[in-house]
Amino acid sequence: MPTLDPTRLSRMQQYWNASNYLTVGQIYLRDNPLLQEPLRPEHIKPRLLGHWGTSTGLSFIYTHLNRLIQDNDVDVIYLAGPGHGGPAIVSHVYLEGTYSEIYPEIAQNTAGILRLFRQFSSPGGIPSHVSVPTPGSIHEGGELGYVLSHAFGAVMDNPDLIAVAVVGDGEAETAPLEGAWKSIKFINPAHDGAVLPILHLNGYKISGPTVLGRDEDEDIQRLISGHGYEVFFVEGDDPMTMHQKFAETLDTCYAKIREYQHDARTNGFKQRPPWPAIILRTPKGWTGPKVVDGLPIEGTFRSHQVPVADVRANASHLQILEEWMRSYKPEEVFDEQGRLRSELAELAPKGDRRMGSNPHANGGKVLVNLDLPDFRDYAIQVTKPATERYESTRQLGKMMRDMFTKNKQQRNFRLFCPDETNSNRLGNVFEVENRCSTSKIIDIDDHVSPDGRVMEVLSEHLCQGWLEGYLLTGRHGLFATYEAFAMVSDSMTVQHAKWLQEAIKLPWRKPIASLNILLTSTCWRNDHNGFSHQGPGLIDTVLSKKGTIARIYLPPDANCLLSISDHCFRSRNYVNLIVIDKQPQLQWLSVEDAVDHCNRGVSTWDWASNSGKLEPDVVLACAGDVPTLETIAAAWWLRLHLPELKVRVVNVVDLMTLYPPYFHPHGLDESTFVEHFTEDKPVIFAFHGYQRAIHEVIHGRTRTDRFHVRGFMEEGTTTTPFDMVVRNGMSRYHLCIEAMKQATRVQELTPSLIEECNDLLAKHHAYVRANLEDIPEVRDWVWTEA
Amino acid sequence: MPTLDPTRLSRMQQYWNASNYLTVGQIYLRDNPLLQEPLRPEHIKPRLLGHWGTSTGLSFIYTHLNRLIQDNDVDVIYLAGPGHGGPAIVSHVYLEGTYSEIYPEIAQNTAGILRLFRQFSSPGGIPSHVSVPTPGSIHEGGELGYVLSHAFGAVMDNPDLIAVAVVGDGEAETAPLEGAWKSIKFINPAHDGAVLPILHLNGYKISGPTVLGRDEDEDIQRLISGHGYEVFFVEGDDPMTMHQKFAETLDTCYAKIREYQHDARTNGFKQRPPWPAIILRTPKGWTGPKVVDGLPIEGTFRSHQVPVADVRANASHLQILEEWMRSYKPEEVFDEQGRLRSELAELAPKGDRRMGSNPHANGGKVLVNLDLPDFRDYAIQVTKPATERYESTRQLGKMMRDMFTKNKQQRNFRLFCPDETNSNRLGNVFEVENRCSTSKIIDIDDHVSPDGRVMEVLSEHLCQGWLEGYLLTGRHGLFATYEAFAMVSDSMTVQHAKWLQEAIKLPWRKPIASLNILLTSTCWRNDHNGFSHQGPGLIDTVLSKKGTIARIYLPPDANCLLSISDHCFRSRNYVNLIVIDKQPQLQWLSVEDAVDHCNRGVSTWDWASNSGKLEPDVVLACAGDVPTLETIAAAWWLRLHLPELKVRVVNVVDLMTLYPPYFHPHGLDESTFVEHFTEDKPVIFAFHGYQRAIHEVIHGRTRTDRFHVRGFMEEGTTTTPFDMVVRNGMSRYHLCIEAMKQATRVQELTPSLIEECNDLLAKHHAYVRANLEDIPEVRDWVWTEA
Repeated sequence: MPTLDPTRLSRMQQYWNASNYLTVGQIYLRDNPLLQEPLRPEHIKPRLLGHWGTSTGLSFIYTHLNRLIQDNDVDVIYLAGPGHGGPAIVSHVYLEGTYSEIYPEIAQNTAGILRLFRQFSSPGGIPSHVSVPTPGSIHEGGELGYVLSHAFGAVMDNPDLIAVAVVGDGEAETAPLEGAWKSIKFINPAHDGAVLPILHLNGYKISGPTVLGRDEDEDIQRLISGHGYEVFFVEGDDPMTMHQKFAETLDTCYAKIREYQHDARTNGFKQRPPWPAIILRTPKGWTGPKVVDGLPIEGTFRSHQVPVADVRANASHLQILEEWMRSYKPEEVFDEQGRLRSELAELAPKGDRRMGSNPHANGGKVLVNLDLPDFRDYAIQVTKPATERYESTRQLGKMMRDMFTKNKQQRNFRLFCPDETNSNRLGNVFEVENRCSTSKIIDIDDHVSPDGRVMEVLSEHLCQGWLEGYLLTGRHGLFATYEAFAMVSDSMTVQHAKWLQEAIKLPWRKPIASLNILLTSTCWRNDHNGFSHQGPGLIDTVLSKKGTIARIYLPPDANCLLSISDHCFRSRNYVNLIVIDKQPQLQWLSVEDAVDHCNRGVSTWDWASNSGKLEPDVVLACAGDVPTLETIAAAWWLRLHLPELKVRVVNVVDLMTLYPPYFHPHGLDESTFVEHFTEDKPVIFAFHGYQRAIHEVIHGRTRTDRFHVRGFMEEGTTTTPFDMVVRNGMSRYHLCIEAMKQATRVQELTPSLIEECNDLLAKHHAYVRANLEDIPEVRDWVWTEA
Repeated sequence: MPTLDPTRLSRMQQYWNASNYLTVGQIYLRDNPLLQEPLRPEHIKPRLLGHWGTSTGLSFIYTHLNRLIQDNDVDVIYLAGPGHGGPAIVSHVYLEGTYSEIYPEIAQNTAGILRLFRQFSSPGGIPSHVSVPTPGSIHEGGELGYVLSHAFGAVMDNPDLIAVAVVGDGEAETAPLEGAWKSIKFINPAHDGAVLPILHLNGYKISGPTVLGRDEDEDIQRLISGHGYEVFFVEGDDPMTMHQKFAETLDTCYAKIREYQHDARTNGFKQRPPWPAIILRTPKGWTGPKVVDGLPIEGTFRSHQVPVADVRANASHLQILEEWMRSYKPEEVFDEQGRLRSELAELAPKGDRRMGSNPHANGGKVLVNLDLPDFRDYAIQVTKPATERYESTRQLGKMMRDMFTKNKQQRNFRLFCPDETNSNRLGNVFEVENRCSTSKIIDIDDHVSPDGRVMEVLSEHLCQGWLEGYLLTGRHGLFATYEAFAMVSDSMTVQHAKWLQEAIKLPWRKPIASLNILLTSTCWRNDHNGFSHQGPGLIDTVLSKKGTIARIYLPPDANCLLSISDHCFRSRNYVNLIVIDKQPQLQWLSVEDAVDHCNRGVSTWDWASNSGKLEPDVVLACAGDVPTLETIAAAWWLRLHLPELKVRVVNVVDLMTLYPPYFHPHGLDESTFVEHFTEDKPVIFAFHGYQRAIHEVIHGRTRTDRFHVRGFMEEGTTTTPFDMVVRNGMSRYHLCIEAMKQATRVQELTPSLIEECNDLLAKHHAYVRANLEDIPEVRDWVWTEA
C-alpha cells in the first residue's frame, strides 16, 4: 500500500505547487500576484534575481517534512545548504503562517502575496538567500560548505531534535562539507538528536556538471556508507511517483532514527548505528520551463538562476512564464482573498512544530544561562608582579572543568578543540569530562567516551561549525585552537559575524551565546614548531568586523584571562577573540587588579612605571602576553640604566578600546585615551599581532604619528622564544632603543645606552649563529626584577 | 616468490635502520653522533624537539620508493602530509647524498652527521618540519590538509611524474584533505602523471585517537573506493613481513598506474581508471621504545613527539635512549668515517632520480616561460574617459584564450576557478579550451572534456591547492574566484606566502611563477547575492605578508587589468592579488595610459581634476574600480557646483606604493608621494577594501591624519549597486560632503552644497524605503559627463 493515500497525495502536490508558484512569483512578479488577469510586461520586475534551480527540490522536501512532523509530532528544523534557494524556504514559511506572524505586513492575502513578491531581492526588502530574516533558519548557505557541521552542532545534547540538512550537489564538492560527513562519529543516540542528511543531486552547478551528480549510485553508496551511513536513494522526475517514494523513504529513515535512539536510551550506548542518509536525485529546475529559445532548460545548468530571462521585452518569454506559473494552478490553491485554501493549510504543522517557528532555530528562546563558578576561585595568588610563572590557560581549564560539572544536568556546554586540549593546557577538564567518540575505544585511549563533551577532531572547520550550530540552537561553548590555524576557518568566523550583525537588528531573534574563540600556542611561542605555526592573522580578520559584534581580548596573564573568559561566557551575540599563550609565563596582576584592568580595558601600570603622577617622557604600551613581558623588561632596563627618563607602562587588554568611540562602543573617550597615552608623547607600542594593524585601530586619535608599533612582522622559524622577539624587532632591547630615540628630553644621555642595547642584540645574533657549532642552553632569557 | 630477495630485504632493513637512527639522533644528540662511546648526559640536547610518531612510517615509505625508482627508472616526488616528520625526510635526503651536495657543511662523515643532528630544530639551524630548506619537498605540511591537492596539481600535465602523497591520519580528518580525494576525477592518464596516495594510519593524533584509525578496513575500503580508487591495505608491525608486503603492493600499484597510462596513451582516454591507493597501518612510533616508566609508548599517542623525555637527568631514560639507538646498529650501517656503507648507499637512486634532487620538486629548474600574447591586442579603445562601458574581465578572458592556444604544445598553463569562469566573464577561454572532467560527460554539457585545462570544482581549497602544486613544479596559472569566498582558502594563501618568503632566501631553489589570484564578483557588485557574498578580507590578509613577496593590484578598468595581468604572469615568486569586478563598468584609460599608470602604480588624473599644475585644495584619491567611479563622479559634481574648489584626483592601482619604501619595495619615495598627495592637504580616499586598512598602509607618511578613508564598512545586503556605496558611506555624495568639509579654503561656499548632497542622499534612502510599495527601475545611477 502506498504511503500516501490519494487525497493526501493530491493535496501535498497542491501544497508543493503553491510553494513553487510563490517561488516563481518572488523571482518575477511585481504585480498581478495571483494571475487574476493575463500577464503583462508591467507585471514583471525590472530586475530578475533569484535561484530557481535548487528551489523546487528544497520545497519538495519541506512539504514532506511537514507531513512527517504532523504524523509524528516531532521537533524538526530544516537547514538548506544551498541557501540560494531562499525563495523556496520563504514560500513555505509564509504558507505555514509563521511569516505573517513575524512580519504582519506580509499578510495571508493577495496584498500580502504581492508584498512577499516585491520584497524579495529588492532594495529595502529581503536578501535572496535563506538569510537571518528567514524564520526557522540557522544557516545562511551563502558561503557553501557548513550545512552538515551546523546541523550536527544543533543536535548535540538536543535528544528530541531532528535536523534535516539538505546538501546541494555543488556544496557537496566543498572541502568543509566533505569533511563534515564524519560528524556521526561523534553523535550519541542516547543523548543527542539526529541529523538526516539529504544529498540533493541535480547534476549541475552554475554552469558545469557536479562531481557527485555524475557518479554512479553504487559509487555514492560506497562513499556515504563508507562514512558510516545507511544510504537511501530517491530518484526520478515524475512528481506523483516521487511523492510516494520520498514519503516512504522518509518514514523509513525516521523509524530507524527513533529505533536507534530508543535502543540506546533503553539499553545504553553500545555502538554507533548506521544513521540514515537520503540521496535525492531530481532535475535541476524541476517543474520549470522545459525549453526556451530552442535550448533545454529543466534538468540543465541553464535553470540555475532565472530560467527564462528578458520577459518584459520578449513576448514569447512572457508567454512561457505565464504558462509556467499557471501550471501550478494558483486558482486552485489560493482562495479569492489570496489565502491558502484551508484543506491545504491543514497540511502544515501547528504552532512551534512549524519549522519556521521551531524555537531551536531561534536559539535565544531556549537558551539557559550557564551556571558559572566564581572565576576568582581559579585565580593565581599574585602578591607581587612578576614573581610567579604559570601556564595561564591551565587556570581556564580548571574553571571549565567546573563549568562542565555545574552544568551537567543542563548539558549545554561543550569545548571544541582540534586534538589540542592537553597541548593547550586545558587538560584539567578531563578530570570530569571526556573526549567524545562513538567509534571503537581501546584500553590505551585517554579519556575517550561516547558520552564526552570535549569535542576533538583534527578539523578547525568541523570544530567551529559544530560550535556555531550548538550556539545557534541556544547553547554555550568555546573553540580553542592554535593561533595560526584559526585562519583555516576564519571565513567561518567572518560569516558567523555577518549572521550576528543581521540578527541583532531583528527583535524576534533572541540573543544567543557569543562565539568564543581562544587562540593559544601563539606565534611568539611556536618557536619549536616553526614558521607555518606562526601567524596572528585572525586578529586582522576580526578587526574588520562591526563594532556591534566584534571583540578582541589580549589578556597578559592568568587572572586577566579568567576575568575575560567569565565576561565572554556571559556575553551574548558577540564574536569574542581571546589570545594568550599556553607556556609558563610571568604573572602580573592579583585577581582584584585583573578584574579592574579588564573592566577598564586599558590601564597604566604604575608599578612598572617611574613617571608617577607626572607626564612621562615616553609611554611603553603593550597588548598581549609576550609583548607585555618585553615591555615590562624594557621599562625595568630603562629605569635601571636611565632613571632620568620618565617611563609610563600602559597595558591594553581590550584591543577595541583603542578604536575611537564613534567606531567601536568599547572605544575610550578621548580624555581617557589621553590620560593613558598623553597628548603628544611618543608611544612605543609592543603588539601581539601584525605590527601595522594598530595604526588601523588608532586612526582618529590625535597625533597618531607618535605611535611606534613593534609587532609580528612575519619573521619566524624554529628557534628560541627570545629569538622570535628579536627577529621581529620587538625585544626589550628594541623597545629600549626606540624609546631612547623618541624621548627627546634626555637625548644627550642615550647614545651610549643605545650602543649597549645594540651590543646585547649583537651578542644574541652571535649566539644564534654560533649555535650550530656549540649549542648552549636554549631557553628564554627571563627577566627577573633586580 | 617474495618480491625482495634476502639480500635486498636485509639491506633495505638496514637502510631503514640508518634513517631511523639519524631521525632519533636529530631529536636527541648534540654529541657522540655514532655512539662510538657510551651515551652520557652531556651528549643530549638541552631542549628535545621533533616528532617521532610519524617518522619511521615516512622513512619506511621513502626506503621503498627508492627501490621502485631504481627498478623502474621513474620520476617520483615525495610529499609528506605529516610534515612534522621532518627529521625522517631529512635523514633520507642526507643518506641519498643530495643534502651534502646542497649543504656541503653537512658532509657524509661523522662531523657531517654531528652537524646534521645539531642543526635540527635549533636556532640558526633548520625547522622541525619538512620545510623549504628540505631538498625534494614542495610541501611543508605544517598546516595540515593540502598534501593531496598539492600532489595532484604537481602531476597535471606532467605525464611521467608520480607524486607519492603520504596522508597522515590526523591530516585525513581535515576538511581540505577530505575534499581532495576527488581530484582523480580531474586526472587524465593520457597526459597527466599519477598520484599514489598512501593513507598512513597509526591510530593517534597528539593525544586522541584518529577517526579513520578506528574505522574497520571494510569501511575505509568503501570510503576510498567510493571516491574512485582501488584500495590496497598493508598492515602490520613486523618489519620483515611489512617490507615484503609493501614492496609487493608498491609494485602492483606501479604496474596499474603504468597500465592505465599506457592504455590511454595508446588508445585514447576512454574512462577514468580506478587509480590505486594504499592504506598503510603501522604502529605510531614504530620501532621506538615500547615502555617508559611503565607506560606503553610505541603504538600510542605518547610517541607523537619525543617518546622518552628528561634524558639528561634521568639515568634510566638515558639508558632507554641508548638501547633504542643501538637497536639500529649504527656500527653496521655507517663505516668508520661515518659514511653510509657502500652496499647500502647503492640502494638510493642516482642523480636527478633521487627524490631530494628531482627537478620537479624545484620547479624553477623546469619552468618554461609562458609565451604571452601582446596584452595590448585585447585593449579597449578609449579615446575619452568614461564614454564606454565594458565587462573588464572579459578582455582578460580573451587574453587567456590566446594564452591557452600559444602554450598548447608546452601545456604549462591552467585556469582554476570554482565553477565561475563564465560567471566571472572569463568565458572566452571556452572558444579554445574546455572544463576538465574525467567523469561521465553528457550531451547537454557545455565545454567539458577529459582534456580540458579549465579546472572548475566548487572548492576554493582544491582550486588553490592544485594551482600551488602546479606552480611549485614549474608551471603557470591563475586562480579566479568570487572575492568574498577567497577567504575560504586564505590560510592557504598565508602558507604559500610563507613558503615563498623562505624559498627566495635559498639560491638553490629556482624562482617559480607567482601565485596569481584574481578576485571578481566583488563586494560592491554582489548587490544581488547579498551580505554573505560581500567581503574584501583577502586584502587584509595579503597586506600583512612580507613586501618581498606580497603584491596587491586594484585595476580601475580593462586596460589596466590587462597590463597588470601581463606583469603578474611574467613575475616570479610573488603572491599577486588582483581585484576587479566583472560587471559592465566605465573605462577610463587608453592602453598606453594604462601601461604608464600601472608602471607608476599611482597617477594624478589631470583630466578628472581642476587643479592643473597648482596645489589642490583637496585630493580625491581612489583605489579599486567602484571607488574610482564614485571618485570621478564626485570630482565632476564638485567641479560643476563648486568650481572654486581645486580638486585633484589620484588613482592608486598598486596598493603597495602607499607603503613607506622602507616597508615595501614598491613604496613611493616620499617626494613622489607628496607630488600626488601634497604635503598637508586633506585626502579623501575611496578604497575598495575595508575602510581602515589604508591607515595601516600609509603609516610612516607625513601627516596621515589628513587622510579620510571611505571604504567597505561591512554594510551590505541584497540591494542595488548604488545603495551599496551609500550604505558604506562611499557614494559620490559622501565623498563630496567630506571634501567640502575638509577643504577649509572655500568653507563659506559649502554649506548649501553640503545640504544639497544630503538631500540627494535622503532621496536615495526614501527611494530604497519606498521600494516595497512601488519598485522603480532598479539600476545603477550612472554618472555621465555633462
